[in-house]
Order: sequence, then structure tokens, then C-alpha cells
Amino acid sequence: MSETARTTVTVLGLGPMGRALVHALLDAGETVTVWNRTPSRAEPLLRQGARWAASAGEAVASSPVTLVTVVDHDAADAILSTAGPALEDRTVVGLTSDTPGRARTTAELITAHGGHYLDGAILTPAYTIGTSSASILLSGREELFTTVRPLLRKLATPTLLGDEPGRAAAFDVALLDLFWTTMSGYLHAMTLARAEGIAPNEFLPFAHGIREILPAIFDDLADRVEHGRHDDPTSTLDSVRSSLTHLVSASQDRGLDSAALDGLLRRVRDAEQAGYGQDEISRITDTLQHGRTAPASSPTGRRDPTAVSSR
Amino acid sequence: MSETARTTVTVLGLGPMGRALVHALLDAGETVTVWNRTPSRAEPLLRQGARWAASAGEAVASSPVTLVTVVDHDAADAILSTAGPALEDRTVVGLTSDTPGRARTTAELITAHGGHYLDGAILTPAYTIGTSSASILLSGREELFTTVRPLLRKLATPTLLGDEPGRAAAFDVALLDLFWTTMSGYLHAMTLARAEGIAPNEFLPFAHGIREILPAIFDDLADRVEHGRHDDPTSTLDSVRSSLTHLVSASQDRGLDSAALDGLLRRVRDAEQAGYGQDEISRITDTLQHGRTAPASSPTGRRDPTAVSSR
Ligand SMILES: NC(=O)c1ccc[n+]([C@@H]2O[C@H](COP(=O)([O-])OP(=O)(O)OC[C@H]3O[C@@H](n4cnc5c(N)ncnc54)[C@H](OP(=O)(O)O)[C@@H]3O)[C@@H](O)[C@H]2O)c1
Ligand SMILES: NC(=O)c1ccc[n+]([C@@H]2O[C@H](COP(=O)([O-])OP(=O)(O)OC[C@H]3O[C@@H](n4cnc5c(N)ncnc54)[C@H](OP(=O)(O)O)[C@@H]3O)[C@@H](O)[C@H]2O)c1
Repeated sequence: MSETARTTVTVLGLGPMGRALVHALLDAGETVTVWNRTPSRAEPLLRQGARWAASAGEAVASSPVTLVTVVDHDAADAILSTAGPALEDRTVVGLTSDTPGRARTTAELITAHGGHYLDGAILTPAYTIGTSSASILLSGREELFTTVRPLLRKLATPTLLGDEPGRAAAFDVALLDLFWTTMSGYLHAMTLARAEGIAPNEFLPFAHGIREILPAIFDDLADRVEHGRHDDPTSTLDSVRSSLTHLVSASQDRGLDSAALDGLLRRVRDAEQAGYGQDEISRITDTLQHGRTAPASSPTGRRDPTAVSSR
Repeated sequence: MSETARTTVTVLGLGPMGRALVHALLDAGETVTVWNRTPSRAEPLLRQGARWAASAGEAVASSPVTLVTVVDHDAADAILSTAGPALEDRTVVGLTSDTPGRARTTAELITAHGGHYLDGAILTPAYTIGTSSASILLSGREELFTTVRPLLRKLATPTLLGDEPGRAAAFDVALLDLFWTTMSGYLHAMTLARAEGIAPNEFLPFAHGIREILPAIFDDLADRVEHGRHDDPTSTLDSVRSSLTHLVSASQDRGLDSAALDGLLRRVRDAEQAGYGQDEISRITDTLQHGRTAPASSPTGRRDPTAVSSR
């Protein structure tokens, strides 16, 4: 049984993201209860009108809605477990990035205590919170989303992706995967260029040139993977393998680690060995998953673009 | 001693790129001699007016300028070596992607036979050739570039990067590194999304959302690396490490290979262990090169952003 709410919203976790949420909520006229493992981080917020709770349970009890933003779902679950019975009839919105599996575990924990759970993933940096460029993906029951949407709108543009609790985290991990792998490619390329006597600012305009050809390529590859259409290549896997081999050796010539290129080269070779050397690079969406590529000679091999999704 | 030229340009190598070059040259009214290891690939081009040469030597002798576009510089050098004395006073433009070191070797080979060499790298796909979006980077002597520029303009926008024969290839490997690592991230992200029940076309608009935040991030990171400014982070290496750990485990949960993420995670950990956990991800441009990161505690460690370029 929860106490009567004293504020409109509670924020658990006061790292850069939690603090940005509290600032935006106070600016929007909400009354806010806060709690953080390290209490000192709350001080500037208390001076701005936030209310401190002595425990996570007291914090959850203080508001109908609680936002949780800590380092990962292990930390989130540990904190929420201490809140225990205070969770009854309370709504918790998890805004901590983690795996889809961990989002589901947190949903079960909250439900077991009689609370309501929406899982969310914030797609944009802390400094965007409260501006029109901030974006949050959510998953959970629609009526719950409808209830908290006015509050979330004060922070970011919220998008509901469906019922299944792991869905926002699934989009989040895939998008972060794209983002960080691209970052790693960009930083590696700049390091290789610099090792060849090309300064970062000299490399930059050409890097933008590569970035500018991405829209059509993203569209084309999504369409290929969606429809399992890997033949009719713009460049064959055999030709890509040859390019990657040069990139690895150009990296090694300069003593650079080439883990990302090595990994891609292995997947390209897997696909070639399975008989797909004349296919487009999109074919590796089958070989990325260990041992899931049927050889091209197998009658079903070339017809099973959904092998991965059937897991 | 070379024979008298009978056509304006020769193309050696008739893969997708060589064929695209020949088409564009014929469309632009050039007379074209072709040669390819596998003669049958020339047939459609001969019907369109290209002239077949019985050997690479005869092909080189037939035109003042020869474009070479084969799988790599080993193949290019082998073909050009058979041309031998026919190279005298001929201009060869290498349009085969390989390492800067291999570009230099080809330049030496041509020069040794009394020929003139420009090394080039085609930055855009075969289907762009002959359109305004096609781009070729070149390195070599300026007067040679001036001579062949009108011809190259019929194929793409040519940009001379300097005298040093390896310079176009240096830009090319760094740009291909960025391109293919980004592709690997995108294909991996789509595979992970699909394994989580998100179809490629459902993932696509969100992937474009990530792509759209890249311009400012490319600018910021180039500036950080140029000036060795890795503190004042938007997100710390410690926080990135936590995100990457979730991405690796989300991949493993679905049986996906995670080589690119593993590689980045190792470099982030190296930087953390050297004491840079509160720095921006740009710091790893120092750790990408094996054993080149001075610990943060070393007085010179934080002041040597050019450690890599000094090689
Ligand atoms: N920063 C951004 O721009 C951004 C953007 C999008 C998404 N996110 C996501 O937002 C979440 C929060 O990120 P952040 O930037 O605020 O910083 P963070 O470093 O990821 O998290 C810091 C918060 O986690 C708490 N915490 C860590 N370990 C804990 C434990 N074992 N028990 C209890 N609390 C613990 C910290 O408490 P103490 O103060 O006591 O250490 C602090 O409140 C993360 O999932 C992150 O991926 C952040
Ligand atoms: N395709 C593109 O969109 C694109 C874009 C930018 C740059 N490039 C670059 O352009 C170059 C050519 O690429 P491509 O797409 O045309 O296809 P490719 O598969 O890279 O090269 C095919 C050509 O190389 C020849 N070849 C291969 N091994 C040989 C050997 N040992 N001896 C003699 N010839 C050999 C082939 O002859 P056979 O016909 O006898 O096999 C054919 O002419 C590559 O360096 C590539 O990286 C291509």
C-alpha cells in the first residue's frame, strides 16, 4: 500500500541524464521528488525546488509516476527492489539503456509488486532534454503510455513502439550498435589517415562526402535484407573481400589495430565459402549469426532470408 | 618504342568498373581500345564500338592514355609488366584500389619503363560513372594531371591531391575504412533488430535518424583529434564502455557475432586503464595504434595528440 503522493513525478538516478530530466521537469512547472545513491549530487537540484526522499521506497511513494535513469538495469532493479511494496499502483518509466532481456526482467519485477511499467530508451544526448530534438522510444501498454505522455512531452518526443516490454530496448541496442560502430569506423579512418600524413581537418570534407552517399545505400540495403534480394550486386562480395584485405594491410602497415575490419572480413569469407561470392554485401546479414548460413548449393540455402528472424 | 596510337584511350580490366568506364567513354565520343584477361567480357562493348587488342602490350600501344581497373595492384602490375616496352612515353592512370605502398610500387614500375603514371582512386560506385556524382582522387605530377583531366572529366570529377604517388590511395583506404565499417555497423544493427523481431523497413527510418545526427559529430570529433582535445566529454569513456557491454551482450543473446563492438570495447578499456575514463571517445585515436597510449599519469601522456602521425 502506497502513501498519498506529494509530488507529481519522482526521478531515481542523478547522473548527467537524471539531472537533465529533473531540470526540464522543474522548468515545466512539475513538482519533483529525487533520490540518488550518492545524495550529494542532489544538492543543486534541491536548491532549485526538488524534494529529497530518504529512500528509493519513499521516493516512489511520493509521486504517481517515477522515472528511473541509472547506469544499467542491474542497478535499476536493485534500487526498485528496495522500494518493494511502495511500487503498488505506481507507474514506473525505465529510462536506462540496457538489453531487451533486462527490460523484460524489470517489467516483471514491477508487475510482481503491483506496479505498472513502461520501458523507455532515450535516443538523444542529455543536453537535448527539454528541446524539440530530444527523442524517447517506449514500450508497454497503450493506456499507460497515454497517461504519462503529457509528462514525457515536457522532456522529449515520446514514441510508443508496442506492448512488448523489450521492444524499445531492442530498437535502442540496434541503433546504438549502428551509432558506435560508425563512430569506431570514423575514428579508425581518421587515425589511419593521420598515420599517412593526412590531418583530421583535411580528411573531414572527404568523410562528409562518404556520409552523404549513405541515404540511398541505407535504403537499398534495407530493401535487400527485407526481401532476401542479395544477387544483382553493385559490388560483389569477392570484390569487397579484396578491398577489405587492402584495408587490413594498410592498417597493419601503420601498426593500427584492425579488429572491426578483421571481423567484417571473416563474415565476408564465410559468405564466400558458402558460395555467395557473387552476391551483394547484404548477404552477410545471414552469416553474422554463427553457423546460420546455408550453403548456396543447398536447395533451401538461397531461399531463406528469414533464417535469422525465425530464432 | 611504341606504335602509333589508333584510339584516344585504352581500358585494361573489364569488371563492373572497367565496363562502366568504357560505356561512359564511348558515350562521350572517345575511341576506346579494351583488353581483359577473360576476353568474353569485352563482347557487348565491341558491339558498341570498342576495339579489342590481342594483348595488354598492344592495348597500351594503341592509345596515348591507358586506364587500369582490375582487382588489385598485384594484378595491375602483372598485366603492365607484360606490356613492357609499350609503356614508353605512354600515360597510365591506375584506377585500382589498393594500399598507398602498392600505388608507389606501380608508379616505379611504369617509370622504369619510360612511362608516366598517375595513381587514382574512384570513390563512388560503378553506376555513378559518367554522372556528376562520380568522384576520382588522383596523385602524381600536376602537368600529367592537366593533360588527362579533360578525359577524366568525362567519367567523374577528378581531384589532384599532390605529387606523392601514394596520396590518393592513402585517402582512399581511410575513406573505404569509414565506409565499410559503417556498412558493417548498419548490417549488424539490421541483423540484431531482425533477431529482435524488428523488420528492416521498420528499422530504416530510425537508422536514418541516427545518420542525420552524424554531421555535427564528425565535425566535433575531427576538431578534437586535430587539437588533442579529449576532455569535456558529451559522454565519458566509462559510460560508453557500459553501453558497449550491453550491445555485446544483446548480440550474444541472439547468437550474433560482435567482432566490431568487441574491438571497440577493447580500445575503450585500454584508454580507461591508461586513466582516460572521463575523456571523450576521440581519445581512442591514440589507443588504436598498439601500445602507443601513454598513461594519463605520465606528464607527456596527455600532451601528445600527434603520437600516431609522428611515425
Ligand atoms: N548522458 C547521455 O547523454 C545519455 C543519452 C542517452 C541515454 N543515456 C542513458 O541514461 C542512463 C543514465 O546515464 P547518465 O549519463 O546519467 O550516467 P551513467 O554514468 O550511465 O549513470 C549514472 C547514474 O547511475 C547511478 N548508479 C551507477 N551504479 C549504481 C549502482 N550500483 N547502484 C545505484 N545507482 C548506481 C549513479 O549513482 P551515483 O551518483 O551514486 O554514482 C548515477 O545516478 C544510461 O543508461 C545511459 O546509457 C544517457
Ligand atoms: N565496382 C565498383 O562499384 C567500384 C567502386 C569504386 C572502386 N572500385 C574499384 O575498381 C577496381 C575494379 O573493380 P570491379 O568492380 O571492376 O571488379 P573487381 O572484381 O574488383 O575486378 C575485376 C577485374 O579484375 C580482373 N582480374 C582479377 N584478377 C586478375 C588477375 N589475376 N589478372 C588479371 N586480371 C585480373 C578481372 O579480370 P577477369 O574478367 O578475367 O576476371 C576483371 O577485369 C577495384 O579496385 C575496385 O575496388 C570499384
